[in-house]
Amino acid sequence: MAIRNHKNVDKIPEPTLRRLPWYLSNAKLMKEKGEKYISSTQISRQINIDASQIAKDLSFVNISGRTRVGYETEHLVQVLEDFLGFTNMHRAYLFGVGSLGGALLSDSGLSHFGLEIVGAFDVNPDLVGKTINGIPVYHSDEFEERIKQDQVNIGVLTVPISIAQMITEKMVDGGIKAIWNFTPFRIRVPENIVVQNTSLYAHLAVMFNRLNEAIKK
Amino acid sequence: MAIRNHKNVDKIPEPTLRRLPWYLSNAKLMKEKGEKYISSTQISRQINIDASQIAKDLSFVNISGRTRVGYETEHLVQVLEDFLGFTNMHRAYLFGVGSLGGALLSDSGLSHFGLEIVGAFDVNPDLVGKTINGIPVYHSDEFEERIKQDQVNIGVLTVPISIAQMITEKMVDGGIKAIWNFTPFRIRVPENIVVQNTSLYAHLAVMFNRLNEAIKK
Repeated sequence: MAIRNHKNVDKIPEPTLRRLPWYLSNAKLMKEKGEKYISSTQISRQINIDASQIAKDLSFVNISGRTRVGYETEHLVQVLEDFLGFTNMHRAYLFGVGSLGGALLSDSGLSHFGLEIVGAFDVNPDLVGKTINGIPVYHSDEFEERIKQDQVNIGVLTVPISIAQMITEKMVDGGIKAIWNFTPFRIRVPENIVVQNTSLYAHLAVMFNRLNEAIKK
Repeated sequence: MAIRNHKNVDKIPEPTLRRLPWYLSNAKLMKEKGEKYISSTQISRQINIDASQIAKDLSFVNISGRTRVGYETEHLVQVLEDFLGFTNMHRAYLFGVGSLGGALLSDSGLSHFGLEIVGAFDVNPDLVGKTINGIPVYHSDEFEERIKQDQVNIGVLTVPISIAQMITEKMVDGGIKAIWNFTPFRIRVPENIVVQNTSLYAHLAVMFNRLNEAIKK
């Protein structure tokens, strides 16, 4: 099983989970700069979040700082990477090798953060049988057989919206437990299935709107 | 100026802005299926959001439905695409042609949602002077000169965290008004600059954590 058991993570709130990577990147930067210790006050000054909030968020992570000195930088990086699940590989399939799907396959950066895409599925005959960035593209019909061999429980969804729900159901029936949904479609899943929505287009919409407001001022 | 003036958008809340693309993708799907009308009740059933919430969200958009029948599907698609800024092109530069940056340049899908990346900047001599998916890669030193000619006010940030803040400042000094930040680094900007954070890694962290919880149950 590719998933390790984290301690004390049962009730960690999503806003905390979203902030922890900020602290991690800041700690990484301090480590690069050769800083041996880093305090929540220092992080606070650099990323403009209350030091008390940072200390509270870090209390979910199994690390203790020293008064006046703070956390050991290298240790904090390690503990955070570990806690966030970036240090052990989570095997995933990608569904839909279109423009965005192909782009994600080409992004080797994901593997540095614990996501290893081990196969992709599509029906396009120009793609099936090829590899992209070393990742094999299979015909969608092969999914049910493949997943029995490969130890995969994450699916990355980058199909057209018209088949997003259908493919979701296929994934869940095959044994996928978590879906990273890049489509702008809101998929329906059984209660025990994890869905992470990352709609680049929704983010674009927010950015365009805010930019438009800013320009009008 | 590439930015159009939307009406009545001054105070549209971010959660509404994030939900509107869901309604849009649903309406698109209904349009593909040949449905002439679509009601908030129908959308509600399909994406599991309260019909009253949908009606409220759509009230920000300049469209009126007919009692019992709902909205004209094609018109709703048009009005939403327009409102969300997907129908007119927003010119952008991308900074940092690494793995993720290169992947985003290859993703032609963004242009269907109103973002046209017209140039990229990097210092890597293997990349400078090349084009990726038709988009020229310039040396970072050329930015200040380029932006005077190109009409660009959006910057996509995909540089390493160690230079994220430095490049941000360079962008802002050059005249960039909105930054789409894909780095896990929390950048600091002047008040009038729009920042849209899209950290794939933060989303991964949330998904890994939730998956881990779900498996333990």
